[in-house]
Amino acid sequence: MPAGAPLGPGAEFDLIRALVADARGHPQVLLGAGDDAAVLDGGWVVSSDLSVEDVHFRRAWLDPGEIGARAVSVALSDLAAMAAEPVAVLVSLAGTPADHADGTLEAVGRGARAAAEAVGASLVGGDLTRSPGPLLVDVTVLGRAVAPVLRSGGRPGDELWVTGPLGGASTAIRLLDEGVAVPPPLRERLASPRPRLAAARALAATGLVHALIDLSDGLAGDAAHLAAACGARVVLDDADLPAHPEAVTALGAGPAREQVLHGGEDYELLMAAAPGLGARAGELSDALGIQLVRVGRLEPGEGVWLRGADGALRPAGGGWDHFREPGAPSSGSPP
Amino acid sequence: MPAGAPLGPGAEFDLIRALVADARGHPQVLLGAGDDAAVLDGGWVVSSDLSVEDVHFRRAWLDPGEIGARAVSVALSDLAAMAAEPVAVLVSLAGTPADHADGTLEAVGRGARAAAEAVGASLVGGDLTRSPGPLLVDVTVLGRAVAPVLRSGGRPGDELWVTGPLGGASTAIRLLDEGVAVPPPLRERLASPRPRLAAARALAATGLVHALIDLSDGLAGDAAHLAAACGARVVLDDADLPAHPEAVTALGAGPAREQVLHGGEDYELLMAAAPGLGARAGELSDALGIQLVRVGRLEPGEGVWLRGADGALRPAGGGWDHFREPGAPSSGSPP
Repeated sequence: MPAGAPLGPGAEFDLIRALVADARGHPQVLLGAGDDAAVLDGGWVVSSDLSVEDVHFRRAWLDPGEIGARAVSVALSDLAAMAAEPVAVLVSLAGTPADHADGTLEAVGRGARAAAEAVGASLVGGDLTRSPGPLLVDVTVLGRAVAPVLRSGGRPGDELWVTGPLGGASTAIRLLDEGVAVPPPLRERLASPRPRLAAARALAATGLVHALIDLSDGLAGDAAHLAAACGARVVLDDADLPAHPEAVTALGAGPAREQVLHGGEDYELLMAAAPGLGARAGELSDALGIQLVRVGRLEPGEGVWLRGADGALRPAGGGWDHFREPGAPSSGSPP
Repeated sequence: MPAGAPLGPGAEFDLIRALVADARGHPQVLLGAGDDAAVLDGGWVVSSDLSVEDVHFRRAWLDPGEIGARAVSVALSDLAAMAAEPVAVLVSLAGTPADHADGTLEAVGRGARAAAEAVGASLVGGDLTRSPGPLLVDVTVLGRAVAPVLRSGGRPGDELWVTGPLGGASTAIRLLDEGVAVPPPLRERLASPRPRLAAARALAATGLVHALIDLSDGLAGDAAHLAAACGARVVLDDADLPAHPEAVTALGAGPAREQVLHGGEDYELLMAAAPGLGARAGELSDALGIQLVRVGRLEPGEGVWLRGADGALRPAGGGWDHFREPGAPSSGSPP
């Protein structure tokens, strides 16, 4: 089996790397673990995403329908990152007997189904069990791609683009954590992420997009995966980072920029594209209902770097790590 | 989308029914929720199975590698029930930071991968997250079937067969619960279920097998799903129920029989087959390393019935229900 792309740094990714290293390859597996999704014979693309209460969401912040819908949308974002059409979704739910009795589990399930059907996919399975612990939703998504766009296709000289403003969802989390009122546009970014499914397929169809990854762990962290996969370095232009305007209003420009780099939960796409995309960015943004913003470029080298106004480069730092040691530096957002 | 087969009774299944009722069908979904697995264009078959600590397993009973392997084997059993060849597995793991630090999560993941590779499937993805709550493994399995065998293909006149002795795993749970020493063959049934993947494909290839379901919730409960799916009644011959011999030794014949009917966790197959299977049962059992036992037949009607030595019929009762009301009658085995 051709292994997926190398992953960027982080304890979580160290363990994933260890688990899938030299995985045995079935001949019908065209691409194994390591990209946003695996690719199977016939152009089928598959990925799973696990959402756990008090790690990925809090009940105080989202209603049960939003919890289910968000879990599915976040998983579907991995299909967007492969430029795949969503077809089928499986949803595994665990909750307490009280969650079953009071309709919470059913509402989570209905929200999950609605999010799948909103993009044309069918709820085809899953599982349902009681649990003594936190509410939990694990979502597997299956899509089909004529030509999946991988993380690894970028090359030095490519420009890097994102599909919309960043840092909105993680700013919402920060404000909720602080007990501050959250502007509705920021809450929307947290509660109802919109996977860029149609946009990704349209962008891939231009023939200009060489690599795609979705932004879940913060631009710096996900760019590190892209850099590692492409065997190149990512240089981000500090002045061009598209902080969500409401995040800037709420936090100020400096902290909003930190949310862009290290906040996570954006579920926009980061892509490496031929320079020709620039000439079409306005037209494509309008047609696809997105906001294409050029954030940097790929260069020979490795890692993720920020270029300041003076032209000097400094390391961009990491993204969110689920197993970061307590006390280690963290600007990540999940609670 | 052609919906999957109707499910038997139970609060868990009521909720699943509600969630998938009239699910919107993508044209590439050939069979939706309700069977052991969904069927997608190209003969792809997909199913998910969630295992939660202190619901489906206890750490005191299984080591971490066994927990991971068992979760995958149990999920693969759904592919066996479709007569599909296993191709790819995704494993989502949640554990505490301590589970990460002491290597528990890695051991679970390695066990999961080994169980996938033991049957020729590749570990192609999944997710990994910390959780404040119980250790948890959600497994999605993908297989391919030339002609998936559904639950619904049985007809009155078919004979019902199982692929091996039943009640062993649930007897092991019962003994562990009581603090009694567990005979190794029973512990093996609990810790290392063997999904009947190759046997199912070989049995399907005889052309004699009309319907298949795997036995996870006890023969009575799973037979109820088969009966509902086939629009027929299941009549089990009390004298023919194949209780695991070590279960009979440990518990006595009567309680062992209850484990067969209501214990669950067997992961053998129940099939409806043309009467011609009987003439080949010995040869097939030897060739496939299984123990085919005729347990009853399909008749016009509905429900699951036990025929006693006197020929009288009585209802067989239900299987394990994850959301059974506290205090309601239960002979189910999961802790």
